[in-house]
Amino acid sequence: MDHHDDMTLVLLGATGDLTRRLLFPAIYRLYADGKWSPKHIIGFAKEDWSQEKFLAHIEENLKQFVEPFDTSTWKRLRDSISYQAGDLDAKSLEGLKSRIPKAAVFYLGLPPQLFGPAAEALGQAGLNRGPGWRRLVIEKPFGWDLPSAEALRESIAPWWDEDQIFRIDHFLGKDTAQNVLVFRFVNRILGSLWDSEHIQQVQITYAETLGVEGRWQYYDRAGALRDMLQNHLLQLFTLVAMEPPSDWDAADLHNHKAEVLRSVRRIAPERVADFAVAGQYGRGTLEGKPVAGYTDEEGIAASSTTETYAALKLFVDNWRWHGVPFYLRSGKRMAKDWAEIAVQWRPVPENLFGAGSADWLIFRMKPDEAIDLVMWAKRPGLGLYTAPVVLTSPYKKAGEIEYSAYEQLLLDVIQGDHSAFPRFDEVEESWRIVDPILSAWANLQPEPYAAGSEGPAAQDRLMEPGLSWRHLSLNQASGHEGV
Amino acid sequence: MDHHDDMTLVLLGATGDLTRRLLFPAIYRLYADGKWSPKHIIGFAKEDWSQEKFLAHIEENLKQFVEPFDTSTWKRLRDSISYQAGDLDAKSLEGLKSRIPKAAVFYLGLPPQLFGPAAEALGQAGLNRGPGWRRLVIEKPFGWDLPSAEALRESIAPWWDEDQIFRIDHFLGKDTAQNVLVFRFVNRILGSLWDSEHIQQVQITYAETLGVEGRWQYYDRAGALRDMLQNHLLQLFTLVAMEPPSDWDAADLHNHKAEVLRSVRRIAPERVADFAVAGQYGRGTLEGKPVAGYTDEEGIAASSTTETYAALKLFVDNWRWHGVPFYLRSGKRMAKDWAEIAVQWRPVPENLFGAGSADWLIFRMKPDEAIDLVMWAKRPGLGLYTAPVVLTSPYKKAGEIEYSAYEQLLLDVIQGDHSAFPRFDEVEESWRIVDPILSAWANLQPEPYAAGSEGPAAQDRLMEPGLSWRHLSLNQASGHEGV
Repeated sequence: MDHHDDMTLVLLGATGDLTRRLLFPAIYRLYADGKWSPKHIIGFAKEDWSQEKFLAHIEENLKQFVEPFDTSTWKRLRDSISYQAGDLDAKSLEGLKSRIPKAAVFYLGLPPQLFGPAAEALGQAGLNRGPGWRRLVIEKPFGWDLPSAEALRESIAPWWDEDQIFRIDHFLGKDTAQNVLVFRFVNRILGSLWDSEHIQQVQITYAETLGVEGRWQYYDRAGALRDMLQNHLLQLFTLVAMEPPSDWDAADLHNHKAEVLRSVRRIAPERVADFAVAGQYGRGTLEGKPVAGYTDEEGIAASSTTETYAALKLFVDNWRWHGVPFYLRSGKRMAKDWAEIAVQWRPVPENLFGAGSADWLIFRMKPDEAIDLVMWAKRPGLGLYTAPVVLTSPYKKAGEIEYSAYEQLLLDVIQGDHSAFPRFDEVEESWRIVDPILSAWANLQPEPYAAGSEGPAAQDRLMEPGLSWRHLSLNQASGHEGV
Repeated sequence: MDHHDDMTLVLLGATGDLTRRLLFPAIYRLYADGKWSPKHIIGFAKEDWSQEKFLAHIEENLKQFVEPFDTSTWKRLRDSISYQAGDLDAKSLEGLKSRIPKAAVFYLGLPPQLFGPAAEALGQAGLNRGPGWRRLVIEKPFGWDLPSAEALRESIAPWWDEDQIFRIDHFLGKDTAQNVLVFRFVNRILGSLWDSEHIQQVQITYAETLGVEGRWQYYDRAGALRDMLQNHLLQLFTLVAMEPPSDWDAADLHNHKAEVLRSVRRIAPERVADFAVAGQYGRGTLEGKPVAGYTDEEGIAASSTTETYAALKLFVDNWRWHGVPFYLRSGKRMAKDWAEIAVQWRPVPENLFGAGSADWLIFRMKPDEAIDLVMWAKRPGLGLYTAPVVLTSPYKKAGEIEYSAYEQLLLDVIQGDHSAFPRFDEVEESWRIVDPILSAWANLQPEPYAAGSEGPAAQDRLMEPGLSWRHLSLNQASGHEGV
C-alpha cells in the first residue's frame, strides 16, 4: 500500500457510459463504505461541459445506479471531483500536469480504437512518468485479433511499461472467478482430484436472454467469440486449468495462466468445424413472448453472418489435462440467464449399484452465485436405489453488500496489484487460440437456433463420446435405478 | 425373491415392548404401503392371553405408534394374525408346527438371556428345518463379552446354520448407514480420496440427551461401551473403513467388514487409558432445566461405576488407513441429540491464503438426516479472505415416507438378504476389540461430566496432536483470515 492517499484518478472518456454506469457507482460505494477516500478525481472528455454540468450528470446517474444514495456522502465525495474538457492529444492533456500532485491512474474509458492514441498522447504529454507512480487502465477489447493486439501493444509500449498497465477483464473482479482459485487451492479434496485421472470434462457456459440491445454497431462487427470467449471465458478457463502457484503472487499467477494458454492445442484451419460452432438466433419465444431473430433487429443487415453464439472445444496438452475436453460457450437470446463453470469427474471404475452417473462441481454465477456439488446417494426409503443429490452452498447471502466487479478492480489498481488483470502474453495467447476460428468464420453462415432455446443443435457435434452439454438449469441429473 | 408369499412370521416374546413399539408398526406400514402382504403372523409368548386380547393390545399400540392409522387396513391385516400362549420349550413350540405350512421366520423378541434357550428349543421342536426355508432373527446384544458371545453361538450352532441367522443391528437398517456405502462407492471423488494419504481422522459420534429412563436395570449392568459402541458404532466404523467389495453381495460385504475389524490394532491392557475414556454424568442442566446425576437416578446405586459415556480411539493397521485415528463415542445426557459420521481430510500441502482448515464430510443422522461437506471458499465481497462454507443436502425431505429401520430389516429377512446383518465373525471381532477395555473398566471410576455437557474433559486425552473433538453442532469451522 504505497502512498495512494494523494493519488489522482483521471477518467478519460468521462462523459461516457462506463463512467456513469459503472465507475462512479463503484467509486461512490468504496467511499461510502470507507474503503477508499479519493482526493483528486478528474473527469476528462471532449465535451465542452462545465464542472457543474459534469457533477450534475454524475449525481443524476448515481441516484439511478446506487442504492441507497445519500446526499451528504455525495456532497463530500463531490469535493474531490473536477472536470476538464479537451481533446485526446498531448497538448490538451498537458494541461492536466499541474493538477496531478503525485501518483496517478489514467483510466481509458474510451472506444477501443482510441486506446492506442490515448496511451501515446498521455506519454507524449509526459504524464506516464511521475512524481509518484503512474498507471494506465485499459478497457476491453485489447485488439481485434492477434495482429491488431500486437499493434496496439506496440503503440503503447514506448510509453508505458507492462507493470504500469492494467487491462480490465471485469469477470476477474467477480467473486466467483476469484473463488475458483481459492476453492481449488484451499480444499485438499479438490486439489487432489484436479487432473485428467479424475476429471472427464469441464464446461464453461455464459448464456444470456438479452439480445444485442443498444450495442448492435459494436456487436455486429465483433460477434460472440470476440465479445465473450476470447477474453472472459478463456480467462475463466485459465483459472480452472492453471497449475498451482507457489505463492499468491501476480507474477506466478500470470506465468501459470499464460503457460496453460500456450498449452492449448492449436486448431488447424481445416479442422475448425470439429472444435468450434457458430450460431445465430432466429425468431423464437422467450418467457412466453415472441422474440425477433438477430437479422430482424434494428441496424442488423439481413445478410449478417455475425455469430450470436459461439462454442469451443479445447484440449490442454500437458500432463495434468491430457485428453480432457474443455467446453466454452456463450450466447445471446438463450433460454435463460445462466452462467456456470462446471467440472465433471469421471464415473467410479465399478458401479456396484448398476446405475448412477458422474459427479459435478459447479461454480454458479447466474442466476445466483453458489457452489454446487452434484453427487449420488442412496434414495431415502426402502430398497437400495441411487439418486442424485445436490450439495449446495449459497455463496452470496441475502443482505450482504453487493459490489460490482469494479470496486475490487479499482482497489487493485490503486494498490498496484496485477493479479486480476490479464498480462499481455495472456491476451496474445488468447488471440492465438481464437484467430484460426475467426478466420474460418469470416464468411461462414452460422448455425441457426431459435431465440429462447439452448443454442444450435449443431453444438452437439463438439461433444466427445458419452458426454453432452449441460442444460441451463440446476437439476442436471435425474432418474435412478436400483440394484 | 423365493416363495415368501405363504411364509409364516413367528414373533417370540410377542407381548413385549419390541413387538408393540417397533415390529407391528413396521409390519403395518409395509402392509399399508403394499410392500408386503403377510399371510401368517403368529404371536407367541408365555402370557395366557386370548387371541382377542392380543389383537386388541396390538391395535391399541398401532393407534399410538402409526400415523395415519386406518381401521380398514388394520381389519384386513388382523386376519393374518394369531396368538399362541406357551412356554419357551420344545413341547410348547411343537404346537406351532401344524400352523406353519411352509417357510418361516422366527423372531426372538426376547431378553438376551433367552436367545440361546429359545434357539435350542425351536431346534428341538424341529422348527429349524422346513418344509420351506427357516430363518432365525436375533435381537441385540449378541453376548456380553467375547466368551459369552462364543458360548451363545455354540448353543445355537447345532440347530441353526449361519446363513439361517439374522442378527439385528438396527443402525444398519437406517438410511444413513446404508448411504455411507452408497456414497463412498458411487462417487468417484470420494472413492479417490478415501485413504490415509487424504484423510486425517474420522469421528463417529452418537450423543443423546436422554438418560437411562426405564432401562436402568439393563443399562447399569451394560454401560455405554456394550450398549452402543461394541455393536452400532463399530458397525458404522466398518462401513467407513472397509475395502470396496467387488460386488454388492452379502458375502463380500461381510468378508470386508470382518477383515477391517480384524485389522483394528489390539489395545494392550496396560494402555487402555490411552485409547479409551469412560465417563459418567453428574448433575447438570439440560435445556435450561436442572437434571439429576446418574447415581441419583432411580435404581442406580451411589457407588455405580457404570459408564454412561464411552470414547475409543482405534487404528486400522492396513495400507489404506495407516496412521489414521478413528474416534468413536457415545454418551447419555449430553448437550444435544447429535449423531454423525464425520470424515476429515488433511489440509492442503501449502495454503496460499495463510489460513483455512481441513475439509469435513459429514453424514448427519441426528437431529436431521443430511450430508454436509464443510469446505473453504473466498469470503464474498472485497479482498481475498477465506471462510468456511457448508455444502449441504437435506437427505430426508419433508413429506417423504418415514420408515423405521425395522421395515427394511424385516424385508431383508423375508428376502433372505444378509447384507445388513452382522455375521458372527464381525460380532466376535467387535468383542475382541472391546474386551480389554471392559476388563480395564470393571472397577474403574468413570470420568465425571455434567449432564448437558459435551462429555468428560478427559476425552481430549485421546486426541492426536493438532486434532480435536467436533462440537455437537453444525457450524464447526469458524473464523477466517486474509492474505
